[in-house]
Amino acid sequence: MKLYTYFRSSAAYRVRIALNLKGIAYEQAPVHLVKDGGQQKTAAYQAVNPQMLVPTLELDDGTRLTQSLAIIEYLDAVHADPKLIPADPLLAAKVRAVALAIACDTHPLNNTRVLAYLRTTFGRSDEEVSRWYENWTLKGGLEPVEALITDGPFCFGDQPTLADICLIPQVFNARRFKVPIDHLPKILRVEATCQALPAFAAARPEAQPDAE
Amino acid sequence: MKLYTYFRSSAAYRVRIALNLKGIAYEQAPVHLVKDGGQQKTAAYQAVNPQMLVPTLELDDGTRLTQSLAIIEYLDAVHADPKLIPADPLLAAKVRAVALAIACDTHPLNNTRVLAYLRTTFGRSDEEVSRWYENWTLKGGLEPVEALITDGPFCFGDQPTLADICLIPQVFNARRFKVPIDHLPKILRVEATCQALPAFAAARPEAQPDAE
Repeated sequence: MKLYTYFRSSAAYRVRIALNLKGIAYEQAPVHLVKDGGQQKTAAYQAVNPQMLVPTLELDDGTRLTQSLAIIEYLDAVHADPKLIPADPLLAAKVRAVALAIACDTHPLNNTRVLAYLRTTFGRSDEEVSRWYENWTLKGGLEPVEALITDGPFCFGDQPTLADICLIPQVFNARRFKVPIDHLPKILRVEATCQALPAFAAARPEAQPDAE
Repeated sequence: MKLYTYFRSSAAYRVRIALNLKGIAYEQAPVHLVKDGGQQKTAAYQAVNPQMLVPTLELDDGTRLTQSLAIIEYLDAVHADPKLIPADPLLAAKVRAVALAIACDTHPLNNTRVLAYLRTTFGRSDEEVSRWYENWTLKGGLEPVEALITDGPFCFGDQPTLADICLIPQVFNARRFKVPIDHLPKILRVEATCQALPAFAAARPEAQPDAE
């Protein structure tokens, strides 16, 4: 398998964690989202992923899958050990709800192309963009997620799930942009639990071959 | 079942379509997102849904499920007829990728609370907000989706799936905000196919009891 990835992309980070948890070997094809005006905007990459986003997972037969959560659901169906989405439909709904609170209501508001639009088209200052970032990170995502997860050690009990896989990259972003999260003890506990696992540690942005 | 809903919410519209396709009877609990400064912001509703968003699906035993895609995945697991997510993992990945392109990369950038932030905190004009809306509707979502779906009649072949369920409310929004979509023939065909089905027609915003 080949993963089109960028070290700092939250969405690529999610798929790296899932691949590592399942012990699936993969090759990395880095796509630099800033250099050269954004390598994801080339016609060559648009042919790989019409949304011009990372990640894309290319299977050994050349089939390309897009959207991190769709990729992880696929991996969970074909490489079931360990299961990242619980078999019980009710627990699966709770796991997916946390994953989607981050993947829909937090991350898309704070990704590179949206912040660029605020800075350039809307002429907003770094300070204004930081307040926007903090608002959606906390109100849109991490504060409600704190109310939706269990007492742990992972988001839902004793095993990592899709919820942890989405939460950890968002916490990484919060720390990078200095969003205060000390009032969210359950999330801090999940962070400590996950970062102690090699599968999460090896997926961290600074551990990637394309890290700067 | 009881659905906390708002007639114009795309996310609630998705769940209404899924419930209708599966023939599941449900009660509506309207939450007006504009009136009274937003009824979703009350402490009472925050206790129902910590994200203060619609929809929430309350099961007969009082269990509450949040996030439209998590709700639909749950419904598809427990009421399997008709299946809205294909059993084949590869086709399921393609269906979910289209659903997520809309649910993550299009809709969250254009929902009520984000547009309110642009108008009030950032002081943007209606014209600027309209250009923002059009940009994310087309570049973020509908144009790449046009490249990801099949020749139909639905997004993926002969049966409606989660992809159609997400696409139709986004097309409704595009028309409401006068975003041009005439250059997207596959999406227009899916729209015509779906709107001819009673399950889609009955879920339309103007057909809801809380419509204005």
